[in-house]
Amino acid sequence: MHYPVLNKNGEIIASAVTNLDLHDIARAAKTYGIRKFFVVTPLKEQKELVKKLVSHWTDGTGSRYNPKRREALELIRVKDSLNEIMDHLNNAGEGCPKTIVTCARQNNGNISFRKLRNKIKDGRPYILIFGTGWGLSDNFIAEADYLLEPVMGGSHYNHLSVRSAAAIIMDRLLGN
Amino acid sequence: MHYPVLNKNGEIIASAVTNLDLHDIARAAKTYGIRKFFVVTPLKEQKELVKKLVSHWTDGTGSRYNPKRREALELIRVKDSLNEIMDHLNNAGEGCPKTIVTCARQNNGNISFRKLRNKIKDGRPYILIFGTGWGLSDNFIAEADYLLEPVMGGSHYNHLSVRSAAAIIMDRLLGN
Repeated sequence: MHYPVLNKNGEIIASAVTNLDLHDIARAAKTYGIRKFFVVTPLKEQKELVKKLVSHWTDGTGSRYNPKRREALELIRVKDSLNEIMDHLNNAGEGCPKTIVTCARQNNGNISFRKLRNKIKDGRPYILIFGTGWGLSDNFIAEADYLLEPVMGGSHYNHLSVRSAAAIIMDRLLGN
Repeated sequence: MHYPVLNKNGEIIASAVTNLDLHDIARAAKTYGIRKFFVVTPLKEQKELVKKLVSHWTDGTGSRYNPKRREALELIRVKDSLNEIMDHLNNAGEGCPKTIVTCARQNNGNISFRKLRNKIKDGRPYILIFGTGWGLSDNFIAEADYLLEPVMGGSHYNHLSVRSAAAIIMDRLLGN
């Protein structure tokens, strides 16, 4: 999600898309058997940029240079909002997934990795949501079905990149 | 490690340093309580580039803009080779760490995450080694003390970025 996310001062902004977020998260998603990777931004120029970056690897010279990269980047779809994703999935006959938001901060009422790992074995669709910038807005987090506990690594430092956090969270929830 | 690594055709090369590798791996290392992050390249211009990128965040305007980023990037040291790292650690009174190499391919004689996680609790120093490009050279891998099993995510696809693989491996070995 590149909107609604916070900036350094806690204001709601639309953050810029980072090329390597697309590559890293798509490759991890493919590794863990995730079916779709939605990149959310309401900004027209950013949506065009994502489509251009992705099509280089799915249709362009990149697809011949590195077919494995193509397999991963083919998971990517660009959408304006979570609502648009829900409409898209409903229209595609996928039903309405339960939403899981991730957050680097400790919050009340969050669900543990262990509990969520068991829950998502139920065969229902789930959508795992990551914020960029300084994280998802509080209102957005409050509306999710589940809020996942933060990744902690044994230190007090919890400032992973969204790329690293996404990889670790997929591994904890779906890894062998 | 940016040398000795393989290119797409299996030839040994020195790969180029990627800015976000430094940031993501340093932030994950800090999260998991790792004490040093050595970036290895024998190329003079690449070493200078790493030092410039790091000093922006440790001494430059970046250190004031984002002190948390400074804490992570302060772990980085640039070295020519694994031998130079070993000399550095010996001279610093750290002793000679056991080497653990990582590889995306299944190899005979590798050690499982579970076994290695238990082993490294022994209080000795260990050095966890990641290749860039198309992975570490076979000769380099053969000389390591331990070869870690590959990260698999439940699919047959195992083409994670080094940033994602490093994050997942640190979490599996050192996460709570």
